[in-house]
Amino acid sequence: MDLFRAYVIADALSILRDHVRLETPGEDTGLLAALHRTLDEDVFAPEDVPAFDRSTMDGFAVLARDTFGASEGLPAYLEVAGEVLMGHSPPGRLETGQAFRIATGGMLPEGADAVVMVEHTEDLDERTIGVTRPVAPGENLIRRGDDLTQGVLLLPRGHRLRPQDVGLLAAAGVTRVRTRKRLRVGIVTTGDEVVPVGQTPGPGQVRDVNSYTLSGQVHECGAEPVVYGIVRDDFDTLAGVMRRALDETQAVLISGGSSVGRRDVTVDVVASLGAPGVLFHGLAVRPGKPTIGAAIGEKLVVGLPGHPVSAMVVFALLVRPLLDPGYRAFPVRARVTRSLTSQAGKEDYVRVRLERDGEGRLTADPIPGKSGLIATMVRADGLARIPLESRGVAAGEEVEVIPF
Amino acid sequence: MDLFRAYVIADALSILRDHVRLETPGEDTGLLAALHRTLDEDVFAPEDVPAFDRSTMDGFAVLARDTFGASEGLPAYLEVAGEVLMGHSPPGRLETGQAFRIATGGMLPEGADAVVMVEHTEDLDERTIGVTRPVAPGENLIRRGDDLTQGVLLLPRGHRLRPQDVGLLAAAGVTRVRTRKRLRVGIVTTGDEVVPVGQTPGPGQVRDVNSYTLSGQVHECGAEPVVYGIVRDDFDTLAGVMRRALDETQAVLISGGSSVGRRDVTVDVVASLGAPGVLFHGLAVRPGKPTIGAAIGEKLVVGLPGHPVSAMVVFALLVRPLLDPGYRAFPVRARVTRSLTSQAGKEDYVRVRLERDGEGRLTADPIPGKSGLIATMVRADGLARIPLESRGVAAGEEVEVIPF
Repeated sequence: MDLFRAYVIADALSILRDHVRLETPGEDTGLLAALHRTLDEDVFAPEDVPAFDRSTMDGFAVLARDTFGASEGLPAYLEVAGEVLMGHSPPGRLETGQAFRIATGGMLPEGADAVVMVEHTEDLDERTIGVTRPVAPGENLIRRGDDLTQGVLLLPRGHRLRPQDVGLLAAAGVTRVRTRKRLRVGIVTTGDEVVPVGQTPGPGQVRDVNSYTLSGQVHECGAEPVVYGIVRDDFDTLAGVMRRALDETQAVLISGGSSVGRRDVTVDVVASLGAPGVLFHGLAVRPGKPTIGAAIGEKLVVGLPGHPVSAMVVFALLVRPLLDPGYRAFPVRARVTRSLTSQAGKEDYVRVRLERDGEGRLTADPIPGKSGLIATMVRADGLARIPLESRGVAAGEEVEVIPF
Repeated sequence: MDLFRAYVIADALSILRDHVRLETPGEDTGLLAALHRTLDEDVFAPEDVPAFDRSTMDGFAVLARDTFGASEGLPAYLEVAGEVLMGHSPPGRLETGQAFRIATGGMLPEGADAVVMVEHTEDLDERTIGVTRPVAPGENLIRRGDDLTQGVLLLPRGHRLRPQDVGLLAAAGVTRVRTRKRLRVGIVTTGDEVVPVGQTPGPGQVRDVNSYTLSGQVHECGAEPVVYGIVRDDFDTLAGVMRRALDETQAVLISGGSSVGRRDVTVDVVASLGAPGVLFHGLAVRPGKPTIGAAIGEKLVVGLPGHPVSAMVVFALLVRPLLDPGYRAFPVRARVTRSLTSQAGKEDYVRVRLERDGEGRLTADPIPGKSGLIATMVRADGLARIPLESRGVAAGEEVEVIPF
């Protein structure tokens, strides 16, 4: 890497990924508590699921070859010899020429190899049906082990559990799993002009917005924010707080004081904390230029811009993928409603509001207003990306939008 | 509405919206606790933000007209008469011919009306700079009240608070808000074949997956799941549990037992609970056909299919928009990698895995496997929608995918 080079997001991410390893100890949890936590073990299927051949339709279990050639005009007549009750074994073995009533989810009797949908049968009398369409062997049923085969890897270590994953574990009868404790992420605000939210700012002062926005964003990554409050722009004070935060958490976000101005001690403090230290200072990204990326041991330190909007944008693009590697934000494509200009050599992320036009296609309406305005973030649904080499996008052209 | 008509998702949603009103009492909360909760009041800005004109660049506060005509060849020379310290009032009034050093976020001195970026100046001596590019009045600054004007509506009642919304409130100095208590959503599983997850299923039995997947999905809507467990397919027992759940929660999801089979008591029980009762039984949606939509008073009751995958899909399409009206799932467009067939007259939702192709465009790879298989849901990133009137989609064509 090159300290004096300004990276685009993808390169900055890959540099940080090379140095940072965010891990917490594991602990056993029940399934409901495991939601949104990260597995600390590979989990294998302890048994076949389903444990028996099941019907996927309401109808009749049959031997498929008894129905071959059946039609509306010439139904195949079968004896209704039994009924499969839900949650019970079938009443016996099915013989050629017989049908057992069965509901969706019912256990297929021995001897049967398919299910005829009730819509494709007619009742002749209490004991006889006519099948009006043939079924193939295996039709309308799930075989034992079709969903999960005993011993198969269900979910790998490092996977973050979504509702469907918890459902998969439940289906397999896995009731406790080893998951990592939540990541703790320190949030430090610097700046001599910043005052706590409950205080009325004096002349030249502003409220500490970033402790709140960043806490919310950390929370949405499934991690636990630890707020260290506002620290003056003083080397020793800031270094002390940063050392404590690095002791107590796995990652520290420090916002404010990262612009390349004369009063900024942040980068000096970060550089003093340990190896490998500062990996880059500056991104070729707008907003987000003054971002600092660093690793102390295997822990992550990111110096975010002081402006709340810029800090949120850099968090979404650079920090979230590191805190929550399983998160996949799929960009949507939308037509911009107004032309956007961009500096070549900069990756631009423009706040947009997504709407549907008359034909149901998405449009991206750029939110007017300067980057310091938090109100612009509230009106936006996503960030439209204008690539490095582009000088702009004309109204009506498509852009990629990352929803947030 | 027509009980015997099978609706598509949009129509089913609009019927439920006409009858259901999910509200909980309000309570005062601090800002950090308010994340993801719904406002129970309109919130107005108590003051202007920012409270003073601020610089958005590191540089010099100037009177714009002192820089008119300045160029690299013929800089405008200004006296550096002071410095604005962060968090403090400027040292005095700026006079014509003067410049004050100022950092990003610094308070503009009286008399100044623009900021020159430090990159567009040169130091001549300790007390003099040359400005090499003119600035217009208002350039590189945010005016008092540009972000928020006192009295303006910040966020309306009913809005669910995202990180940027909490940041907006923090910026405005609003430290407590009235939010609605979390919605409580009851989850009832029916089916004589269903056993608790911790139990080994006997012949014909399956584990209760839906209590887990639906709890996770309810949780992701910012609501609190209340699990009532497994109830036998018996009218009186089920009706008793449903009445208790309706007493204790604002919405009840009952899964299993909603297919139009012979053993199904669910729809009879729901119909018995009160007016307006069952609003529809059956959706023209695959998976999801046997869904029941109902309102009891203004509370919501949805009968979901018993299959975990179908239940999750119907939750994502029909229940989430009701529990979490602020949630906007923007569909992404992706090319399907294999042809998909569809029955005309059915809205199909096919599980797909989203990937990027060589040119960075999204592809949607349909997940093979029958709808009863929870493993298919784990491999999927989203649901590709095949509209009602379509008979299918050819490989390489674009579909809309709803990420989940």
